[in-house]
Amino acid sequence: MNPSTDLRTLETPALLLERARMDYNILRMQSQVSALGCRLRPHVKTSKSWPVVRAQIDAGAASITVSTLKEAEQFHAAGVRDILYAVALAPNKIAHALDLRARGCDLAVIVDSVASASAVAEACNGTGSRLPTLIEVDSDGHRSGVKPGDPVLVEIGCVLHAAGCLAGVMTHAGGSYDLDTPGALQAMAAQERDAVLACAAALRTARLPCERVSVGSTPTALSATDLPGVTEVRAGVYVFFDLVMAGIGVCAQDDIALSVLTSVIGHQADKGWIIVDAGWMAMSRDRGTAKQKVDHGYGAICSVDGRPLPALWMGAANQEHGIVSMRDGSCPSDLPGRYPIGTLLRVLPNHACATAAQYDAYRVVEGLSIVDTWPRFSGW
Amino acid sequence: MNPSTDLRTLETPALLLERARMDYNILRMQSQVSALGCRLRPHVKTSKSWPVVRAQIDAGAASITVSTLKEAEQFHAAGVRDILYAVALAPNKIAHALDLRARGCDLAVIVDSVASASAVAEACNGTGSRLPTLIEVDSDGHRSGVKPGDPVLVEIGCVLHAAGCLAGVMTHAGGSYDLDTPGALQAMAAQERDAVLACAAALRTARLPCERVSVGSTPTALSATDLPGVTEVRAGVYVFFDLVMAGIGVCAQDDIALSVLTSVIGHQADKGWIIVDAGWMAMSRDRGTAKQKVDHGYGAICSVDGRPLPALWMGAANQEHGIVSMRDGSCPSDLPGRYPIGTLLRVLPNHACATAAQYDAYRVVEGLSIVDTWPRFSGW
Repeated sequence: MNPSTDLRTLETPALLLERARMDYNILRMQSQVSALGCRLRPHVKTSKSWPVVRAQIDAGAASITVSTLKEAEQFHAAGVRDILYAVALAPNKIAHALDLRARGCDLAVIVDSVASASAVAEACNGTGSRLPTLIEVDSDGHRSGVKPGDPVLVEIGCVLHAAGCLAGVMTHAGGSYDLDTPGALQAMAAQERDAVLACAAALRTARLPCERVSVGSTPTALSATDLPGVTEVRAGVYVFFDLVMAGIGVCAQDDIALSVLTSVIGHQADKGWIIVDAGWMAMSRDRGTAKQKVDHGYGAICSVDGRPLPALWMGAANQEHGIVSMRDGSCPSDLPGRYPIGTLLRVLPNHACATAAQYDAYRVVEGLSIVDTWPRFSGW
Repeated sequence: MNPSTDLRTLETPALLLERARMDYNILRMQSQVSALGCRLRPHVKTSKSWPVVRAQIDAGAASITVSTLKEAEQFHAAGVRDILYAVALAPNKIAHALDLRARGCDLAVIVDSVASASAVAEACNGTGSRLPTLIEVDSDGHRSGVKPGDPVLVEIGCVLHAAGCLAGVMTHAGGSYDLDTPGALQAMAAQERDAVLACAAALRTARLPCERVSVGSTPTALSATDLPGVTEVRAGVYVFFDLVMAGIGVCAQDDIALSVLTSVIGHQADKGWIIVDAGWMAMSRDRGTAKQKVDHGYGAICSVDGRPLPALWMGAANQEHGIVSMRDGSCPSDLPGRYPIGTLLRVLPNHACATAAQYDAYRVVEGLSIVDTWPRFSGW
């Protein structure tokens, strides 16, 4: 692509990525985690794009977290060695994980049950290989993991250790997504830390090794004040940020690096509707701000040059149609005149991971210029 | 792929397509629309996959509807000539549409405003080409289109006709998705028909041509009893069906051809949670059954061989984790034992279009065998 393409010449919808904002977000998280004395292991499920991951590595991250073995495959092929697959390992993925290790990928996995630990141990004993495994800890009751204090932790640890696979403990305080004050977020970061430290201590008390102590979510990573004993922090969505993160309070709306470029394609003047060609296929069905103080519908509206238009919102969406209207429900008679057919708008996403997954490339923008196109992948 | 691969050997999540159910759904819609004396123009946004579209054409459809110009490009390249792009045309797509026509695609587009009609006319007059254009009619107030009786219809018609581009009228009664009784659906089908017939009559009264009279949505297409004057019917999701369609009452749950294969990867026994490796990335964020009589959460659970397990549902989901639990909120102590780690389940989708879009291929199944893999595309 011509390096000086004007984004106003793109067919819509298109996914825009503001490089300068992304770089700032990367620098901010890297500085925060380095200051805490931990290694940053970015969760690359958000971008699934090598130029983005390379920027995170260039800024100081030496390792990554993935949500699929496809991400592990792709980024190992791109040159990343140290990878944590942070979803409890299904038995049908053990062979694939071992194959990645056999090809030189320093892949680690997670489990939270004796059954899964036994499956890992059995596969390793059968093949003479080793699959470093962290025990997932439930620090906030929101999903998977062993609860601190549960004796099954040591049982799992023994099974893994006997096969030479016990690498440590990890947790993800996804419950932080439901908070929105600095105090509550700091408390959640402390709770996340204390949960893994307690489990690490329990393993060590049982004379089991626990080299890696891993925590993380974007809100807790940015709210933590001290993490002694934690070796690494994982975070993903910070690289782009989104409206959910702005609602939680860990970024400003101006930090959001991702937006969807869309065109006005019609009006229903009597209802105050501006119809655009970005529907839920372009925005994703994610309505993560619905439970926050400010509900952004399917996305927050900005002008083509990125200026927020907070009086508008995308209150409804069909597959390829977004319905933009006044947030206060009013129906100004001059709305079609202010946003005529062909008007370009940008829509900030509720959830960057979900919106980016709808596209196969990022259009990298500086001002109104497209300076690059970065491919991304999806799927498993 | 080996034609006899057992689906129980797949890595999860994976998107399964039951060929026999799809074939039955295609036959059913083709028979219904043929019996009504109309041509069927399947909306291929649901599958975005050539083998599926080819099956629809083999069953009698001679033309298709698309939701993106990418679909038009792909299926024109595969050999389909007669294509309707059924989203009001953005000005930045006119050149692309004309280019497709110049390459032999018999593409038609839609508009619902004088501004868009003028943009089409201007582009055609400037290039000496012709872009057949249907005027979108609003038959149910749910989205875009000119309301029957609005004099702007004839105004748009005149602009298009002067450029040799007026091809007819079309509507989509998306409001049918909110209904769930045969009587209400029949009434909506009649309302959809009457709206376009009124607009066709208004154009003809103004001595304007109106060759094509196009209606359609899966619920109204399957509920219509007589469509005299209508030339074609468009419908999309019927090809796979989904839980939303079952809730509307136009298919049985047994007709749903699409499902997501997933593995049990953990439990939270005290909460009655079975954690699976299909989260909202695998199911999509679509919660279309939330407003129906039976809310299926993120999907309805079946055994690996497709037997419904109606006591279970996927009540919550994270990006790569689905949380399956008892629909009645109970917490049987033997749940982990009944669904141990590694158990394979199938999850029926709320909305086939949204779920399929999360994958790059369909695994075509007959019984427990994978007999084919059909690629699909996404994006714009």
